[in-house]
Amino acid sequence: MKIIKLAKFKLDKNYTKIMKRSGEQYSGLFDTVKNIFNEVCQRGDIAVKEYTKQFDSVDLKNFKVSKQEIQEAYTKVDANYVKALEQSINNITLVCKQQIRDIKNTVIETQPGVRVWQKWNPIEKVGLYVPGGRALYPSSVLMNAIPAKVAGCKQISLTTPPQKNGNIAPEILVAADRLGINKIFKIGGAQAIASLVYGTETVPKVYKIVGPGNAYVATAKLYGLMSGEISIDSPAGPSEVFIIADETADPKFIAADLMADAEHGPDGASVLISTSKKLIEKVVEEIENKAKQFKTQNNITNSIENYGLFAIAKSTDEAIAFANEYAPEHIQIMTKNALIVADKIYNAGSVFVGNYTCKSAGDYASGANHVLPTGGSAKTFSGLSVFDFMKRIEYQQCSKQGLDRLRNTINTFADVEGLPAHKYSCGVRFNNNKTYEKFS
Amino acid sequence: MKIIKLAKFKLDKNYTKIMKRSGEQYSGLFDTVKNIFNEVCQRGDIAVKEYTKQFDSVDLKNFKVSKQEIQEAYTKVDANYVKALEQSINNITLVCKQQIRDIKNTVIETQPGVRVWQKWNPIEKVGLYVPGGRALYPSSVLMNAIPAKVAGCKQISLTTPPQKNGNIAPEILVAADRLGINKIFKIGGAQAIASLVYGTETVPKVYKIVGPGNAYVATAKLYGLMSGEISIDSPAGPSEVFIIADETADPKFIAADLMADAEHGPDGASVLISTSKKLIEKVVEEIENKAKQFKTQNNITNSIENYGLFAIAKSTDEAIAFANEYAPEHIQIMTKNALIVADKIYNAGSVFVGNYTCKSAGDYASGANHVLPTGGSAKTFSGLSVFDFMKRIEYQQCSKQGLDRLRNTINTFADVEGLPAHKYSCGVRFNNNKTYEKFS
Repeated sequence: MKIIKLAKFKLDKNYTKIMKRSGEQYSGLFDTVKNIFNEVCQRGDIAVKEYTKQFDSVDLKNFKVSKQEIQEAYTKVDANYVKALEQSINNITLVCKQQIRDIKNTVIETQPGVRVWQKWNPIEKVGLYVPGGRALYPSSVLMNAIPAKVAGCKQISLTTPPQKNGNIAPEILVAADRLGINKIFKIGGAQAIASLVYGTETVPKVYKIVGPGNAYVATAKLYGLMSGEISIDSPAGPSEVFIIADETADPKFIAADLMADAEHGPDGASVLISTSKKLIEKVVEEIENKAKQFKTQNNITNSIENYGLFAIAKSTDEAIAFANEYAPEHIQIMTKNALIVADKIYNAGSVFVGNYTCKSAGDYASGANHVLPTGGSAKTFSGLSVFDFMKRIEYQQCSKQGLDRLRNTINTFADVEGLPAHKYSCGVRFNNNKTYEKFS
Repeated sequence: MKIIKLAKFKLDKNYTKIMKRSGEQYSGLFDTVKNIFNEVCQRGDIAVKEYTKQFDSVDLKNFKVSKQEIQEAYTKVDANYVKALEQSINNITLVCKQQIRDIKNTVIETQPGVRVWQKWNPIEKVGLYVPGGRALYPSSVLMNAIPAKVAGCKQISLTTPPQKNGNIAPEILVAADRLGINKIFKIGGAQAIASLVYGTETVPKVYKIVGPGNAYVATAKLYGLMSGEISIDSPAGPSEVFIIADETADPKFIAADLMADAEHGPDGASVLISTSKKLIEKVVEEIENKAKQFKTQNNITNSIENYGLFAIAKSTDEAIAFANEYAPEHIQIMTKNALIVADKIYNAGSVFVGNYTCKSAGDYASGANHVLPTGGSAKTFSGLSVFDFMKRIEYQQCSKQGLDRLRNTINTFADVEGLPAHKYSCGVRFNNNKTYEKFS
């Protein structure tokens, strides 16, 4: 863990690697996915069954999780877990409801007699993909499903690959059940996405699909997008934390937060920028001492080795400028006047202000969303919110006098663009006698 | 032009064709586009020059439009055109500014000592693609660029294919200049998108690309999205209008509006649903009489033949339910109590209320945006707005007491998800003595 000067980082051999990190890539899997889509579109459940046998090595009679399975799941989870779910659900719901309240739909009169306004409506039917495999992240179920629920989506489906024994982790089932999701399907991979896109005998069609997945799932979501059938969420990559700290910060807190991010996997990125060289040295020492305490030690060591950065900034402003260039998923501000520093961040997913706002608070409990843009894509994408499950309709209304005020503009554009019936459709409203011959 | 009963439309042989219409499709062009991206990424302007010679048959010394070219453009356009631009720009700007004012960023306390809020920031650098070819749509320049400008994007670039003589239509140049866009590049196709994605010696990199284009452009935008470098706008297809009218409406207005939409091209869709058979009959007669007056007659006839629908509804509610299932790009309401009917539409791009709100008013002049979801994708996508050029950052701040209230939830989730450093990063804040050994 070497410590460098931020001003010299551009010349560092790892500069490009660290700045680019790992984004989504063109997988070349489109032909495979196209085939799966065609099969699921044409043969529905039968095709899904075959793929599940092939890819998940399990022969399922019924994909849909039964009420009994959900009841059983409750007997397998700890009472503390249900309690934790309740607090997390409560806080995320409060934030989402505030997001809704934060939208106004004001009517504006652009000309006398010409009114324009907007209205946000929920997307009626949405699907949530939950990955299977080693990692179990029920918190992601909450983060994806609660905004959809608060947005007012009428139908929320969840698909997730079955385990080899044909079951789904009880923590996932209980989380979904607490949110009132009763359409849970044991389907994974591209066949899960295809079944949500087209609908099958068992799985109802949706209009939007969210949630992370492997390359097959990511390609399938893009394929669905291209088919014009669905929209999808933003791409998501490995976890990242970026910390700006000065000499007032506690190196133990910072070391803990960097390790908490790094433990997700070897591709995670952990960055510490500080005006205090002494602080960075203490943090590095602390990580070297403490990492071995965790069963996730290998992830911590490897991700810091691969994408870690410890750099000294001449000023907090230099650190802020670099943060906006790096565009981190999570950024923690542990400086004097942390709120003022935080307010200067404009490229990031989520900003954690002050010494007691550890990333794990936002991961699980504060009410903020943890589905956030990674790999620098915070320059152009936002974290998940109710807005991802709603769509804006624009409204407009002209009086006859209002339209008259727009008439010259309409006529001129219609002429330039060579669209005579556009001109006529305005003009006919001012003269019902056969004056249309003038429009050509 | 046959007239059917809406209740029987599901059994009609054209049902699937009309409901699906033409969405974007997997083009199979990814390998071609990948190659163009690699060349432009590695060789910059030289590669762009080669592709421009190959695809546009023109050998350009300089891609960037000069100040002199813009000055000359003003001498080639009509004074009325500049006046029309002014009104259109003014009205679109007013609507976009209202969209910004309609966002609040309220701080919410989810638990005592736990605060969450949001902030919307502009995407710093965006690119707008303007198609070349036969059709000339300067109004689309306004519709794409004004929301970006009002959102506060610092850098707005425009690329468009050069004509065979190496020029760009003066109407496009004047429209861009009136918006203060001074980065205009004579580049088309996938090479234009690649140059915006990576940047070249001449073209600066951007973080988002919007604007319609052919299959190469659409595939290139998706390829850029997959590379993690950019975000893109929603897919766009042929124009559509859907009219709900009752016996109070004027058949001449309706016929004109259907023709105005149909004249865009043979793939456009024009739908009239009415409770009055007599009204529909008059509209059909009117179209049959009038279409031949327009130089765009072939488009009108063909698109109505291909995707037109004239159907009698038993009630306005039946018509509304069908509109929400069809999810039209544009919907016009010409009924009694039009505002009440309009308010029941939840799947549409833009709603035109009343007899004097013709579609061409929204296309050019009212201030509403005309970049709208087509092919039924209004079920999941919105029309273009300032929100497409902004991104939300979430903020959170915990006091020590606030974090303490979240502690059990954090610990429980960290245990379930197998992330011990997550637990530790919270716990360390309550005990600086070496209690980390407890976290594993």
